[in-house]
Amino acid sequence: MIVEMQKGAEYRFVLQVLEKIKELGFKYQVNLGEERTVVAILGANTNYLDTQIFGVMDYVEEVKKISKPYKLASRDFKKEDTVVKIGDIEIGSNKVVVMAGPCSVESKEQILASAFAVKKAGGTVLRGGAFKPRTSPFAFQGLGEEGLKLLALAKKEIGLLIATEVMAPEDVSLVAEYADIIQIGTRNMQNYKLLEAVGKCGKTIILKRGMSATIEEWLCASDYILKEQNNGEGVILCERGIRTFETATRSTLDISAVPVVKRVSHLPIIIDPSHAAGDFRYVSSLAKAGIAGGADGLLIEIHPNPKKALSDGAQSLTFSDFSKLMEELKSIASAVGRNI
Amino acid sequence: MIVEMQKGAEYRFVLQVLEKIKELGFKYQVNLGEERTVVAILGANTNYLDTQIFGVMDYVEEVKKISKPYKLASRDFKKEDTVVKIGDIEIGSNKVVVMAGPCSVESKEQILASAFAVKKAGGTVLRGGAFKPRTSPFAFQGLGEEGLKLLALAKKEIGLLIATEVMAPEDVSLVAEYADIIQIGTRNMQNYKLLEAVGKCGKTIILKRGMSATIEEWLCASDYILKEQNNGEGVILCERGIRTFETATRSTLDISAVPVVKRVSHLPIIIDPSHAAGDFRYVSSLAKAGIAGGADGLLIEIHPNPKKALSDGAQSLTFSDFSKLMEELKSIASAVGRNI
Amino acid sequence: MIVEMQKGAEYRFVLQVLEKIKELGFKYQVNLGEERTVVAILGANTNYLDTQIFGVMDYVEEVKKISKPYKLASRDFKKEDTVVKIGDIEIGSNKVVVMAGPCSVESKEQILASAFAVKKAGGTVLRGGAFKPRTSPFAFQGLGEEGLKLLALAKKEIGLLIATEVMAPEDVSLVAEYADIIQIGTRNMQNYKLLEAVGKCGKTIILKRGMSATIEEWLCASDYILKEQNNGEGVILCERGIRTFETATRSTLDISAVPVVKRVSHLPIIIDPSHAAGDFRYVSSLAKAGIAGGADGLLIEIHPNPKKALSDGAQSLTFSDFSKLMEELKSIASAVGRNI
Amino acid sequence: MIVEMQKGAEYRFVLQVLEKIKELGFKYQVNLGEERTVVAILGANTNYLDTQIFGVMDYVEEVKKISKPYKLASRDFKKEDTVVKIGDIEIGSNKVVVMAGPCSVESKEQILASAFAVKKAGGTVLRGGAFKPRTSPFAFQGLGEEGLKLLALAKKEIGLLIATEVMAPEDVSLVAEYADIIQIGTRNMQNYKLLEAVGKCGKTIILKRGMSATIEEWLCASDYILKEQNNGEGVILCERGIRTFETATRSTLDISAVPVVKRVSHLPIIIDPSHAAGDFRYVSSLAKAGIAGGADGLLIEIHPNPKKALSDGAQSLTFSDFSKLMEELKSIASAVGRNI
Repeated sequence: MIVEMQKGAEYRFVLQVLEKIKELGFKYQVNLGEERTVVAILGANTNYLDTQIFGVMDYVEEVKKISKPYKLASRDFKKEDTVVKIGDIEIGSNKVVVMAGPCSVESKEQILASAFAVKKAGGTVLRGGAFKPRTSPFAFQGLGEEGLKLLALAKKEIGLLIATEVMAPEDVSLVAEYADIIQIGTRNMQNYKLLEAVGKCGKTIILKRGMSATIEEWLCASDYILKEQNNGEGVILCERGIRTFETATRSTLDISAVPVVKRVSHLPIIIDPSHAAGDFRYVSSLAKAGIAGGADGLLIEIHPNPKKALSDGAQSLTFSDFSKLMEELKSIASAVGRNI
Repeated sequence: MIVEMQKGAEYRFVLQVLEKIKELGFKYQVNLGEERTVVAILGANTNYLDTQIFGVMDYVEEVKKISKPYKLASRDFKKEDTVVKIGDIEIGSNKVVVMAGPCSVESKEQILASAFAVKKAGGTVLRGGAFKPRTSPFAFQGLGEEGLKLLALAKKEIGLLIATEVMAPEDVSLVAEYADIIQIGTRNMQNYKLLEAVGKCGKTIILKRGMSATIEEWLCASDYILKEQNNGEGVILCERGIRTFETATRSTLDISAVPVVKRVSHLPIIIDPSHAAGDFRYVSSLAKAGIAGGADGLLIEIHPNPKKALSDGAQSLTFSDFSKLMEELKSIASAVGRNI
Repeated sequence: MIVEMQKGAEYRFVLQVLEKIKELGFKYQVNLGEERTVVAILGANTNYLDTQIFGVMDYVEEVKKISKPYKLASRDFKKEDTVVKIGDIEIGSNKVVVMAGPCSVESKEQILASAFAVKKAGGTVLRGGAFKPRTSPFAFQGLGEEGLKLLALAKKEIGLLIATEVMAPEDVSLVAEYADIIQIGTRNMQNYKLLEAVGKCGKTIILKRGMSATIEEWLCASDYILKEQNNGEGVILCERGIRTFETATRSTLDISAVPVVKRVSHLPIIIDPSHAAGDFRYVSSLAKAGIAGGADGLLIEIHPNPKKALSDGAQSLTFSDFSKLMEELKSIASAVGRNI
Repeated sequence: MIVEMQKGAEYRFVLQVLEKIKELGFKYQVNLGEERTVVAILGANTNYLDTQIFGVMDYVEEVKKISKPYKLASRDFKKEDTVVKIGDIEIGSNKVVVMAGPCSVESKEQILASAFAVKKAGGTVLRGGAFKPRTSPFAFQGLGEEGLKLLALAKKEIGLLIATEVMAPEDVSLVAEYADIIQIGTRNMQNYKLLEAVGKCGKTIILKRGMSATIEEWLCASDYILKEQNNGEGVILCERGIRTFETATRSTLDISAVPVVKRVSHLPIIIDPSHAAGDFRYVSSLAKAGIAGGADGLLIEIHPNPKKALSDGAQSLTFSDFSKLMEELKSIASAVGRNI
């Protein structure tokens, strides 16, 4: 249930609403919009609440039941686009943000070289996996904390934000020490304990779409994170391809997710063309399509020597291909009224 | 099986190869490339042929068995991009071609107004359905020949090429009298009798991807048309969304099909964002993504009054939205080194 | 729109309703049920009809608009299960019908041996393809009329009904000369011209589900056939697997289609485990599941020598495996209160 | 890599192999089969190992690299069917095991009534959710430990084994105190930390297939559990429907998974018709198909009053429908040479 306050309602009237919600045993989240304040009432049984309880209160403009299963991620709760801020960097604003780096952190040389290539080409975030989810338990699982330290070193030496994946609630505080942005991978999109844990850690979260999740389920999953956050940290959605019958690419990039998410949600959305395609030969085309289609950024895999990568080499760009792509992306961004 | 002649081999040596193929009871198709001539040997049992039969002939460079199930559509048979020419218009060249119009031809006023809007905004082909495939036999099935006549009138009055769908072999000659480009719809992608019939009619064919066809099956279907054609008429592939579990859009536009097709086939590929999305609010985003991703053109539904359309109104753009989109597309095309 | 007559209404009152429908420019189909007569009003614009036009007529019990897109296949139009009768054979009754035979008719020896094996094991219909839809135009396309003649010979010699596929409207009358049951293959489920053509040919039709068709679309397709038929010829639905992301089997047999179809439609439904699995090792398991789940019959591929089959050998059972399966099926049928 | 010992090789020779594996820095798992002992060598880099290292050792019969990504779940590692034993109960043997109960434990009355109904009809395991994964964070999340206590009470009063889901590694030890069988839900199939945690807890695990997991990925996930287990606890696979385009049922039960799993793996497999269908009207048909197709058991939702269930009421059977189904299942089981 959503309670919209009147334009210019003083905060003490908002407080009366919040008191009433607590009294009834529910939780809430407040969106202090530019125009008006909106309060979401949260809990399993809000369906049984009578809208009139709040409708009669002072300075309440409107009370509505939301039929969408997601609430905090919806435009009903927050009309304006969310711009996630991390230091100077904004995600979801006019500037398109490019995050790039190797699938797995493998060595000091590899990560420093990658960071330098990202920086030089105009990227703003270094991505790299320290904890890797692998289909087989007997495949390479990442360097763990050692990998995080190498990312921190690259951050210090080169000057980029760090994005890396976390796979288990017990690792969240460790990863949060090193990372600026924490990724939730596609296999964990509905690992609710993990979503709640990262929601509490104070960092920006990239929530990758589950391989077979509908857009609606994805936004519901984002609610698990958003309900733990205060304003300002934020969630970035990342479309990375869905599972379909087509096998020419590893997944099918659902490019339509960009305009759909933009319409129903206020959250920023980025595209991961590398995991979607699973083949470096298609990455540039998908990256350009993503930006032209309205995405707020990209997550791209690059590697100093893709053929020798310990994981996902086939989908990584070389540094020179990445650099060439960045030039093309700048033109595309400009064609849609944005910049990189 | 593919027989590549040596560079500069005289045509009489090619003829020797063709004679041998006929003698053995097979069919063939010849690609007179700029650099060298390539001959495809066609038939159910080419696997049993010994490559040496041709390998020992004069001026034969190489003979290879093709493991891909499609032959004529493959880059192995024809290395250079196919540019389909219809009068002055080229499809598959540097110029991006926009085809637009209503789903169904409904009346003289509607089709003339649409044609004018297409022309004014910079489109080159008017699309409109006279024969409509409908899921239910009790839904509106199109105006038939009356619709074709209205398209012809619009062509004459406004000056655009005409593209329209044909659904049955017995209608092909009628439709070919009026249309410059004939569409095979998604439901008929594997209607082999129809494919062979349009292959013989001397017109350019748009082959829409089957809703659940893999890219490989789609290219195989194009072989059914190509094997009936002489050089120069050509086939245009059209990605229009595949069926997946996601229901936020009617189909899932498989944007990756663009770079995949460009890699394995020489045929031009266009995008139909209207049928993919099934919702006019997403069409512009997908159209821009398509061109940025490398597509050679677009097939877009527009309607003077989408709310009153007899079919597919929800996915049609108004004239003014279409005109605005065209301006944006020009910038995108220019950003990827092309023009509209 | 559906007009239900009162119980025991004389036929002259039904005629009044039919007259009115014709007068208004619509078509109709009549179901003379055991309890009461039901009339379906057919046409693109029945939505604009006022139910009261018929509601006030004598002996009309109820008039309802049907929101389902299929009408003639629905239980709203016909409450009782349809039992398709061909001579002595009933499909959709208590007896489970097994149709078996080779994918393609290859030779006299092959088809006679197959027919004998089917008969001996207790099957009632011989299936065999004379016209084969093939993904590639260069694959074996079937023996054509020669194949039909061999089927006719097997029918005469061994005494089984004949089921075979037709792929184009112009072949329907030829195939109908030889076949008792005509199959529409998965690729042609939405080839509407073909559906109408077979609807008129006076034979029973097996309508295979399109590889990516929803159950609703499948029933709509059956309406294209049913609207051309008089009572008594009938349509048999055949579930043959749908296209999903799983590649361990060629298609995914949608076993749930059996109870779903049984609930919403009156038509009989059979299962094709051979095409679904694409692997003979899984056929027995799926066949048994199909009968236990409530299917009215099976369509199974067998071959005297699967390894040498010209098409689909990998999914064909040997005669001895088929015979063993039939014994198991008899027990299963009996466990669900039916017989074979 | 798999090391097969010779028939009758004494255990001290096996020990030599194990020593060598440890020395090389790898882990192993031993299968003491009836005929011969097989050792699996586990780790990320077994590909780099030379098979000759073990091939030359005493009483080693054969050393092979396994190309399948799953190892411990494969028939290469263990030829004979695994029969999971919990007290007197066997899963994977000739007896078909029926597990039934409500989706969520709601109250003492509800769970005792359900347990009694399960017992009376011939079921052997009571299922019930205490921790519920829910798409929206604002939906009912289960009673938690209170629910576990109610399950324990039902076990004591009625005498059934208890199966319940666990969602987070930190809850595993708590749940293991109460449950005989621990379920991993579809959303957590690739929550690797959770798989490892339950692998260590000493209980039998039901691993549900991920909604969009291939059979191969599912078996890989089972390896995460199996590698932590000693012999005897075991893993039971549960097919619960996959995500496809069809919306007539909530998921599409992949019945083919039964024969496929039986061929490539030694693990038992059961079917969950309730979650697959999402509709009680289809549950009986799917349950019967499952047993006829070769499944080792069923997981069925029942509820004393489905319309009032706090979750998933639409898919729950009433007690009387369940009891009727059990009678039919007994006939089916007997038809395929098994019993319930």
